[in-house]
Amino acid sequence: MDTPALVIVGSIGIDHIETPFVKKENLLGGSVSYACAAASFFTSPGMVGVVGDDFPEEFLELYRSFDVNLEGLQRAAGQTFAWTGVYEENMDNRSTLETVLGVFEKFEPVLPESYVDAPFVFLGNMHPSLQLHVLNQIRSPKFILADTMDLWINITRSELIEVVSKVNMLTLNESEARLLTDRHNLIDAAQQLLTMGPQFVLIKKGEHGSMLFSKTGTFIQPAFPLAKVEDPTGAGDTFAGALMGYLTQQNACEEADIRRAMVHGSVVASFGVQSFSLDALQPLSTHQIHDRVSRLVSMMQVDLPCAVNASA
Amino acid sequence: MDTPALVIVGSIGIDHIETPFVKKENLLGGSVSYACAAASFFTSPGMVGVVGDDFPEEFLELYRSFDVNLEGLQRAAGQTFAWTGVYEENMDNRSTLETVLGVFEKFEPVLPESYVDAPFVFLGNMHPSLQLHVLNQIRSPKFILADTMDLWINITRSELIEVVSKVNMLTLNESEARLLTDRHNLIDAAQQLLTMGPQFVLIKKGEHGSMLFSKTGTFIQPAFPLAKVEDPTGAGDTFAGALMGYLTQQNACEEADIRRAMVHGSVVASFGVQSFSLDALQPLSTHQIHDRVSRLVSMMQVDLPCAVNASA
Repeated sequence: MDTPALVIVGSIGIDHIETPFVKKENLLGGSVSYACAAASFFTSPGMVGVVGDDFPEEFLELYRSFDVNLEGLQRAAGQTFAWTGVYEENMDNRSTLETVLGVFEKFEPVLPESYVDAPFVFLGNMHPSLQLHVLNQIRSPKFILADTMDLWINITRSELIEVVSKVNMLTLNESEARLLTDRHNLIDAAQQLLTMGPQFVLIKKGEHGSMLFSKTGTFIQPAFPLAKVEDPTGAGDTFAGALMGYLTQQNACEEADIRRAMVHGSVVASFGVQSFSLDALQPLSTHQIHDRVSRLVSMMQVDLPCAVNASA
Repeated sequence: MDTPALVIVGSIGIDHIETPFVKKENLLGGSVSYACAAASFFTSPGMVGVVGDDFPEEFLELYRSFDVNLEGLQRAAGQTFAWTGVYEENMDNRSTLETVLGVFEKFEPVLPESYVDAPFVFLGNMHPSLQLHVLNQIRSPKFILADTMDLWINITRSELIEVVSKVNMLTLNESEARLLTDRHNLIDAAQQLLTMGPQFVLIKKGEHGSMLFSKTGTFIQPAFPLAKVEDPTGAGDTFAGALMGYLTQQNACEEADIRRAMVHGSVVASFGVQSFSLDALQPLSTHQIHDRVSRLVSMMQVDLPCAVNASA
């Protein structure tokens, strides 16, 4: 089979989500679901993940409708990974009520032979030893992005640091950046992370957007302002998936490319949170993405030096 | 005397501030102190405020060193307004330990004859009836900005709404915008505020920057990223003062001008918070401001449509 230009590895889950407004059960979730759907607007990503024998056929159909390459999708006997969570009133804080690891507990991300020459790789948030296992199979990577979370910083720090040393870009949120570096200030923390290996550090700030740090510069990406957020679950994975999809489509990974990719990632994520699961991404068109990209860029636009006539 | 092109009205205070790192007493503070110092990099602002007979001569010298027009500064018998506050560890939250109104309690902002033809006016945060009193004296305003706070929203809502209906731009923070409109979502709240009179609504978000809303567009202004903040007191006044100073210098108030003014305001405020009181503004040069403006604009820069060759 054809080598996908982008391989995405991560969790596939069944989500049960409660927000202040509504409760939804048996939603398709997991980092690789969101990331692959988001990337699919720019490239046909190769998925690596595992599902149990309870995984609904309709969700497989959904993946196919996004033109996701499923050769790397494993099926195992047992229950699919499941997550139950509840959002507080402001939608910022969430609590996990239950996590059932199921078949994800023994997940071994073995890449199909057709995947190992993929130039772009997104290592979704999972145990660093699984991320290293994927890294060891990739033969000629051009650009690797790794995501992580506080859990791995706390319990598997040394393996995580090894992952960080081997990737081109690391993404994490503000508090995780502080936790991993023991630096309170975000700028200090990002500079410290840059000394650990990656050329780029991408700090996610939720509704406040994201920041890119590198030796060549800093970029501040605002989130697209939304009047209504229905479900923020998977926003970070959607953002990173679209970002990697864009870089793959452009076959480019300089800072200027990553800035453009972040705008696209932010926009696709802004659609994603307007409904549960992949509901808002499924009917989305590239025209809608381009339209919102233009609007977001216009909201970031300032023209200097000032050409205004002082006598105006 | 010459009419100043910008008049700024607000409080003058003696601040006693405690941060997690240091405690400082008898600092020059107050909205009009910060705003006038910040505006002075662009124009010579006319100050309207009141001090008691205890006000140190050295602070008057400090105002003069910023080339502030002091014709509108009143001296009254009694104690100068004083504020004692303490910042929590993250520097985000602060508590007021003591407020002594002193001569500010009977402050009547009477403008000198030379001020009443000023085209640009900044009504600093104070009782809305005082803001209205100033508005009634201004003969030919071109652009008026009003600031406010939760206290006035709670206790003098109808007078505040009258102020809002009479100004070109309203500035307030996120929670105040929600409080004044009873809309939880920031976009909704801003749109609601635009129906109340002003052409522009400027939402301050602290370290996350600010947002400008108008009928012609939305602008998202990030804060200049800082590795160290020593004292955030007066940051909003510094931001707004420099913004108004810039508009006055340009004699312009279209949305594109306000965007540029916000960049300058954000930069001057970023210097201001790096020391207590006006300590970081006093030695500041326009060259340093321009340099940081360039750096901030480069952090906001993204070039679209993408010109990257897909075969690169």
